Amino acid sequence: MKRYGQVIRVKPEMVEKYIELHANPWPEVIAQIKACNIQNYSIFMLENHTLFAYFEYVGNDFEADMKRMAADPMTQKWWKETDPCQESLGLEPGEWWHNMREVFHCD
Amino acid sequence: MKRYGQVIRVKPEMVEKYIELHANPWPEVIAQIKACNIQNYSIFMLENHTLFAYFEYVGNDFEADMKRMAADPMTQKWWKETDPCQESLGLEPGEWWHNMREVFHCD
Repeated sequence: MKRYGQVIRVKPEMVEKYIELHANPWPEVIAQIKACNIQNYSIFMLENHTLFAYFEYVGNDFEADMKRMAADPMTQKWWKETDPCQESLGLEPGEWWHNMREVFHCD
Repeated sequence: MKRYGQVIRVKPEMVEKYIELHANPWPEVIAQIKACNIQNYSIFMLENHTLFAYFEYVGNDFEADMKRMAADPMTQKWWKETDPCQESLGLEPGEWWHNMREVFHCD
């Protein structure tokens, strides 16, 4: 299992929409997340400007699973709703969410 | 079980010390964390300026457990090392780490 900590900006004017979408996520999107070996996935909001995600990846090919997720039509439709709410930090070329470095873990 | 997402700044000049301390945390401090009903505790670093923590609280009186942790002499000694590395966002009166709002969760 590999733990991921990720960060992205939320546009202040889209905060309410973002919260509403994520309070009632589409069942097909949740099913796809699980099918792509992601578990225990939480997103936290810092004030009205930054999102912090934590999840656990239990598969053995993260890139292939993420490609599979990106190819799912309902997930694409979901991202059409959520992407305009967010803004990448743009710290790495081509990234959307930014992967942070894990500096501590205690089971 | 309650999930916590927290954020604090790390002082850029203290990043190396912070990483070194947390790569080899003191066993007594880890034991105290577990004794205070905190599990699955990870800290991630964003660039050299911000720390995001995720943990799961499995007790039933978080404030009492945090008081107990703060009264532990080895934890106090540990915090004497780690506190000077950090700087609170100061978003709430008296806070150290800032508790974020959970906006999404998927098991």
